[in-house]
Amino acid sequence: MNDITAKPAQDRVTIKDVAKKAGVSDISVSRVMRNAPNISAKLREKVTAAADELGYTPNRLAGALKTRSSNLVAVIVPSMSNAVFPEVLDGIDSVLAENGFQAALGITHYDKERELQVVRDMLAWSPMGVILAGTDQDERVRHLLLKQAIPVVQMMDIDSDPIQVAVGMSHRDAAYEVAERMVAKGYKKFGYIGAWGERPDRSKLRRLSFEEKLSELGCPLIARLIRDENSSVQIGAQATQALLAENPDIDCIFYANDDLAVGGYFHCMSQGISVPEGLAIVGFNGIDLGQALPSKLTSVKTPRFTMGKESASILLRCHNGAEVAPIHDLGFELMLEGTA
Amino acid sequence: MNDITAKPAQDRVTIKDVAKKAGVSDISVSRVMRNAPNISAKLREKVTAAADELGYTPNRLAGALKTRSSNLVAVIVPSMSNAVFPEVLDGIDSVLAENGFQAALGITHYDKERELQVVRDMLAWSPMGVILAGTDQDERVRHLLLKQAIPVVQMMDIDSDPIQVAVGMSHRDAAYEVAERMVAKGYKKFGYIGAWGERPDRSKLRRLSFEEKLSELGCPLIARLIRDENSSVQIGAQATQALLAENPDIDCIFYANDDLAVGGYFHCMSQGISVPEGLAIVGFNGIDLGQALPSKLTSVKTPRFTMGKESASILLRCHNGAEVAPIHDLGFELMLEGTA
Repeated sequence: MNDITAKPAQDRVTIKDVAKKAGVSDISVSRVMRNAPNISAKLREKVTAAADELGYTPNRLAGALKTRSSNLVAVIVPSMSNAVFPEVLDGIDSVLAENGFQAALGITHYDKERELQVVRDMLAWSPMGVILAGTDQDERVRHLLLKQAIPVVQMMDIDSDPIQVAVGMSHRDAAYEVAERMVAKGYKKFGYIGAWGERPDRSKLRRLSFEEKLSELGCPLIARLIRDENSSVQIGAQATQALLAENPDIDCIFYANDDLAVGGYFHCMSQGISVPEGLAIVGFNGIDLGQALPSKLTSVKTPRFTMGKESASILLRCHNGAEVAPIHDLGFELMLEGTA
Repeated sequence: MNDITAKPAQDRVTIKDVAKKAGVSDISVSRVMRNAPNISAKLREKVTAAADELGYTPNRLAGALKTRSSNLVAVIVPSMSNAVFPEVLDGIDSVLAENGFQAALGITHYDKERELQVVRDMLAWSPMGVILAGTDQDERVRHLLLKQAIPVVQMMDIDSDPIQVAVGMSHRDAAYEVAERMVAKGYKKFGYIGAWGERPDRSKLRRLSFEEKLSELGCPLIARLIRDENSSVQIGAQATQALLAENPDIDCIFYANDDLAVGGYFHCMSQGISVPEGLAIVGFNGIDLGQALPSKLTSVKTPRFTMGKESASILLRCHNGAEVAPIHDLGFELMLEGTA
């Protein structure tokens, strides 16, 4: 049933077999497989059909070994369980796929040692370039990447110095704007809820900036609760309950992300707390779920798909020798909706 | 600033440079880099530190070219915007990372032509194996994969014949069980809501099985609404409104997934329809979000992380020459919660 033992080399389908089957020259097959310019649709169709029929696939390893550059792009993200990264990945894939590149994926689970290992593993494949999330990499990872002769793009935030190029938004500015707008709306007693033990650094920067601006505005943060667990709607509900139990006079909570904020909203619903009169709720990311709530979630919309798309485009431009600015600010949008 | 032009070959750091820096032999460096057995922690530490310091990375391309087998695993999924696939991917990564393999990711966007192209692109990298979602691949993809001498695992469903190995659950059985349990609970007027124009086939099979079982039980489906758009909470809310407008006497809706079902729940909340008294809601997948609702979502829990993990484990076992059964049924769990 499972006859998957490797075939001996002489049984392997070659370019000659494909040429014979398609009734064309070896050169024609090679040109179609390399995606050379000026190939007629008819020739492409004939060769591709013969190759698929015989199960022939070209071998990219030889070419990559010769040039020490492959069509793989190393994409390294901390997690897939947060809705943010799948969307970023979709954006990256939309550009890579169109340009004949392929994402090799590494997931670090917010672990610095794992990130270093993933970067090492990826570099052994001579990737065309590297796309990482965040600018808070370990010094060893930064050093290793600085030594490579390939483009490196860091996505998500632009608040610190990138290795080469950063594509994202300012989390500091976003937190400042939330603080200013909520104080202007008349809220006075602020709380903050986070998760993941406040990894990555950009979420911490956001919280610190929020606290700083609130102090400036004379409404210092009353209470914060940073959970160690992964972020989820449930954790958001539990944390809201805990924060309000200790600080019943809080009138506005800023959450590290929308999942947590939706949990806060659900907690209010189940406890009969009216939103925003009894409690104002502000999320972060502007994911679809928050906008589907009976009362839409006030949140900061981050450009996730665009961030992935731009990161891949900039990587390609660097690969093609273009001069590229070190910082690409894609901005954000404070969405004032029903919950605050 | 962006000095990323490729370095000439003679500037490249070699294994000799690392050996010199670490004060060990070339062979020792080579052994550490290959992860050979019986290497002392001290030697590993010394060599790794020197390699990272110099920015040296081993070159896996040469080895892969020689054996025509790489440590890449082609993972091909339809979408990242559905919470299901990121979780499956996490499961796959958890096994691959531990065993020195790396996922190369392809996203097909439920497009058959794109899937064929992604499979062709991936095979050019001599992957160790291929993991695909679903068993409804195009005949050309099946044929191409059948011709390869590498293991192929299809995840998600086990209702049709796999190319080699299928890992998942029976969507037919899941739909039967939902129909039986809901009729037993006394619901009589059933509706069904889907999205994505009913791609992939397993969601269609689920709907057809649901209809079949309802007919057998004397409560034929009254109305169904399959939206063409991507599935989302919003689409679920809109579709529920539309379905109820035409069929106000429906007392139970089975949704193609939890996102749509949560949308239905939100619609009921905003319209003052009590759940489950006014309308019973049944989702599919058992994602965390549904379990965080003020009234927990009745749903079918699918083993997503486990499915990814098992698929990768089975691929490894095949790669290592083990005999593997063609069908791996991981089962499902009907979670009877507050909404139905």
